[in-house]
Amino acid sequence: MPTIRIPLILINFKTYAEATGKNAVELARIAKEVNLKTDVCVAVAPQSVDISRISREIDIPVFAQHIDPITYGSYTGHILPQAVKEAGAIGTIINHSERRLQLTDINVAIGMARETGLTSVVCADTAEVSAAVAALKPDMIAVEPPELIGTGVPVSKAKPEVVTNSIELIKKVNPAVVVLCGAGITKGEDVEAALKLGTEGILIASGVVKAKDQYTALLDLAEAIMKA
Amino acid sequence: MPTIRIPLILINFKTYAEATGKNAVELARIAKEVNLKTDVCVAVAPQSVDISRISREIDIPVFAQHIDPITYGSYTGHILPQAVKEAGAIGTIINHSERRLQLTDINVAIGMARETGLTSVVCADTAEVSAAVAALKPDMIAVEPPELIGTGVPVSKAKPEVVTNSIELIKKVNPAVVVLCGAGITKGEDVEAALKLGTEGILIASGVVKAKDQYTALLDLAEAIMKA
Amino acid sequence: MPTIRIPLILINFKTYAEATGKNAVELARIAKEVNLKTDVCVAVAPQSVDISRISREIDIPVFAQHIDPITYGSYTGHILPQAVKEAGAIGTIINHSERRLQLTDINVAIGMARETGLTSVVCADTAEVSAAVAALKPDMIAVEPPELIGTGVPVSKAKPEVVTNSIELIKKVNPAVVVLCGAGITKGEDVEAALKLGTEGILIASGVVKAKDQYTALLDLAEAIMKA
Amino acid sequence: MPTIRIPLILINFKTYAEATGKNAVELARIAKEVNLKTDVCVAVAPQSVDISRISREIDIPVFAQHIDPITYGSYTGHILPQAVKEAGAIGTIINHSERRLQLTDINVAIGMARETGLTSVVCADTAEVSAAVAALKPDMIAVEPPELIGTGVPVSKAKPEVVTNSIELIKKVNPAVVVLCGAGITKGEDVEAALKLGTEGILIASGVVKAKDQYTALLDLAEAIMKA
Repeated sequence: MPTIRIPLILINFKTYAEATGKNAVELARIAKEVNLKTDVCVAVAPQSVDISRISREIDIPVFAQHIDPITYGSYTGHILPQAVKEAGAIGTIINHSERRLQLTDINVAIGMARETGLTSVVCADTAEVSAAVAALKPDMIAVEPPELIGTGVPVSKAKPEVVTNSIELIKKVNPAVVVLCGAGITKGEDVEAALKLGTEGILIASGVVKAKDQYTALLDLAEAIMKA
Repeated sequence: MPTIRIPLILINFKTYAEATGKNAVELARIAKEVNLKTDVCVAVAPQSVDISRISREIDIPVFAQHIDPITYGSYTGHILPQAVKEAGAIGTIINHSERRLQLTDINVAIGMARETGLTSVVCADTAEVSAAVAALKPDMIAVEPPELIGTGVPVSKAKPEVVTNSIELIKKVNPAVVVLCGAGITKGEDVEAALKLGTEGILIASGVVKAKDQYTALLDLAEAIMKA
Repeated sequence: MPTIRIPLILINFKTYAEATGKNAVELARIAKEVNLKTDVCVAVAPQSVDISRISREIDIPVFAQHIDPITYGSYTGHILPQAVKEAGAIGTIINHSERRLQLTDINVAIGMARETGLTSVVCADTAEVSAAVAALKPDMIAVEPPELIGTGVPVSKAKPEVVTNSIELIKKVNPAVVVLCGAGITKGEDVEAALKLGTEGILIASGVVKAKDQYTALLDLAEAIMKA
Repeated sequence: MPTIRIPLILINFKTYAEATGKNAVELARIAKEVNLKTDVCVAVAPQSVDISRISREIDIPVFAQHIDPITYGSYTGHILPQAVKEAGAIGTIINHSERRLQLTDINVAIGMARETGLTSVVCADTAEVSAAVAALKPDMIAVEPPELIGTGVPVSKAKPEVVTNSIELIKKVNPAVVVLCGAGITKGEDVEAALKLGTEGILIASGVVKAKDQYTALLDLAEAIMKA
C-alpha cells in the first residue's frame, strides 16, 4: 500500500471535469510520473466515486475529499470512512471550505479516521481556527484562507502572517501536527515560499487540475520542493 | 448497459457492513441471481464509493444513494451526477429520509439527473410531499413514512392510506410518475399488498441487507412480484 | 388584531441596519402611515427579535421572516411558531432564498403555521418549485427568482414568463393560493406590471428598506396598487 | 444594564411551553426573586422572540440562545448579534447541542459577540472539543455531554472526568475562560459537586423550567452555590 511522506503535495480533484472518471485516472497517472521523476511524495484526492478505480490502476496515495462522522449503519448517501479505506484510500480531507463540518462532527470524523487508519488532513481558514483544530489531534492541518482559494494569489505572499501565526498557534497546542499550505499555490516559487514559512507541504487544486499542461505544472511544484 | 423495468425492486445498501466493499459486490451478485431466476428487475443502490466496482463486476442496474445538485466545478466532497454516471450508475435516489435536501436542491438534482441520463427516484414522507415532488417531474417517487423505516411494519398494512392517498395525489399532478412503496417491506406478502395498493415496485434496505439469508429474503420478494 | 387583505405589500426587513431595533419600529410606523393614506394593506416582516416591540407599538400586520418546523419542547435557538404568534405576528415567511428549508420541513412548517393561526407565505424560485409548494397548501406563494433578488431588475420585466408560468402551474395544483411577486420590485410601475401578470401583491425588501426616502418609495408602490 | 458575575446560573428556556411568551416573563421574574434572596447571579436565555419583552420588564441579565455568524445585511430569518444586543441581551449561547454550528461559524460568532459586547457561552460536548473552543477565545465554555442533557443524571456524577479533563485542557489553551457545567444538573447537591470539580457555574434547562415548582427548584440550586 502506498504511504505518504513529507514534504507532501496533495492534489484536490474537486468535481472538476478535468479530474473526473477517466480524466481522474489519467491525472493520477501524471502525479505518479512526477513522483517517479522527483521522488517527491504526491498524493491525490479524487471524488469518492473514483477512489477505487484509481487505487486499483495507479500506485499512488489516495485521499478522500470528505468522510462523514459515522460508522456502519442506517445512513443513506453518506461517505463511510471504512468504505473509503476498503476502496483503497489511505487518508482523507476533512472540513474543506467547500464542505464545512460542525465542530463536533470534525472531532468525530478525526476519531473515525484514526480508528480506520486514514491520515486526516483538516482544513482551517484562520490561525485561531487552526489552533482549535490542533486540539482535536488530526495528523495534518491545511491552512486555507477561503478568500485566496482558486485566485492564484499565493497565501505565502498575500497573507504570510496567516501561515506563520497558524504554525505558531498550532504547535503551541499540538507540536505533532504537520501543517500544509492550502490556498493560492500555482508556481514553484509559491511552494518554496510556503516551505520557508514553515509548512511541510501543500494542498492544491486548480493550480494543477486546471493547468493547460498538468504534468509540467505539477513537475514545477515538485522540483521546487526538491530544491527547498 | 443494464436497464430498469417495472415492477422494480430497488435495494438501498445504506452504509451497512453487510453491504460495504466486497460485501456490496457479493450482495449485488445475489441480486443478479434472483433476477436471473425470476426475471424480476432488481436494482442496487450501493455507497458512492462502491458504484464503479459493482458496475464493472456485476451486470445489474446500479443507483447512487444521493447526488448533489451541482455540475463540474469547485466542489469538494460532493457527489457529482456525471461522475456517478461515468462510474456506471443508471439512476439515483434523491432526498432519502436520511439525506434530506432543500426543496430547491431537489428540483435542481432532478434536473441534473435528467440531463445526465440517470433515472431519478425521489423519496417523500407524506401524501402531500409526494404530490409536491410530482410537480418536479422525477421518474419515480418512493413513498416512505419515516416512522416505518426499518421497523418491519409494512407501510401497506400500517398506513395503507398513505400509499393510496399518495398515488392519487401524485397521479393528479403528474400521471407519468412511477410510485414505489418505500418503507417497512420485509416479506413477499408485503410486496403483494404494496402492488395491490397501486405501487409499481419497492425500495427496500434492511429487509434484504440485514436478512440472515439475503438470497432467500430477496427471492421471496421477487416471487411475490411474479405472482402479482 | 390587524388583518391582511390583498393586494398586499409585504416588506421583508432582513437584517438591514435600516430595519433593526428602533429603526424597525420607525419603518413599521412609516408603513402604517402609507396604509392610512392609501388604504392599501402593508405588512412588515422584521427580525424575530423585533416582532414583539413592533406589534406592541404599531397597529400593523407583522410577519416572522422564518419559523422552524417544531413545536414546544427541547429546541435551543429555534424560532417557535407559537412564540412568534404570542409576540403578535399574524403570519410568517417560509423558505426564503436566504433561509431555505428541506422539503419535508416546509411541509411541517406550513402545517404548524396553519395550526397556530399564522398566514404562510412560502417562497419559490421557479415555476416548478412554485407548483410543488402549492401542493403543500400554503396561504400564499412568493415567486422570487434568486438571480433577481436585490438587483433592481423587476421580475415582471426580466422574466415575466416565470411569473405567468408559476401562476398557471400553481393554480392548476391549488387554485386557492395567492401569488405574490417576490423579486426585483423597486418602482410603482414594477408593481403595476406584476399585478397585470396576475399576482395579488408583492414581497419587497431593499426597494423600500434601503431607499433614501422609505416613505416616498413605499407610497409609490402603494399608489400603483390603488391605480391597478 | 444588568451585569453577570460568577458563580453563574444560566437558565436555557429552550422552546418549552413553560418558558415561552408570558410564561417566559414569569420565569424571569422568579429568577430575579431568587437572585434578590440569595445574591447569586441568575441569568436567563429565552427565545429570541422573547428577549425584548423580558429585558424591558425584568431587571435580569438576558442571553440569546443563539446568534448567527453575520452582521447587518441581506439575511432573512437569521438572528443578528446587534439586534439581540439592542433588544437588551448582554450575552449569548453559541453552539448548543441542539443548534450546532460549523467550526468556522463558531469562530465568527464569537468574534461578533465580542464586537457587539455580548458575553459568549460556547457549548462543547467533550474535553477535546472544549479545548478546541478555548482556542477561539470565548468568554465561557459550557461542557455538556449530549448523552446527559435532560436525563437528570448530573455530569458531575456520571462523568466527572469529562468536567475535570475539560477544565484541564481548556486552561492549558486559554486560562482566561470560565467553565460552566452544562448537563444533567437538577439538585443543589449536583451544583456543589460541579463547583468542587472546578467549574464556576451551571447552564441548566429542564431542571428549572420543567420543575413543578420553578422557584423552589431554582432556589435549591442558588443556595448550593452560596454554601460552596
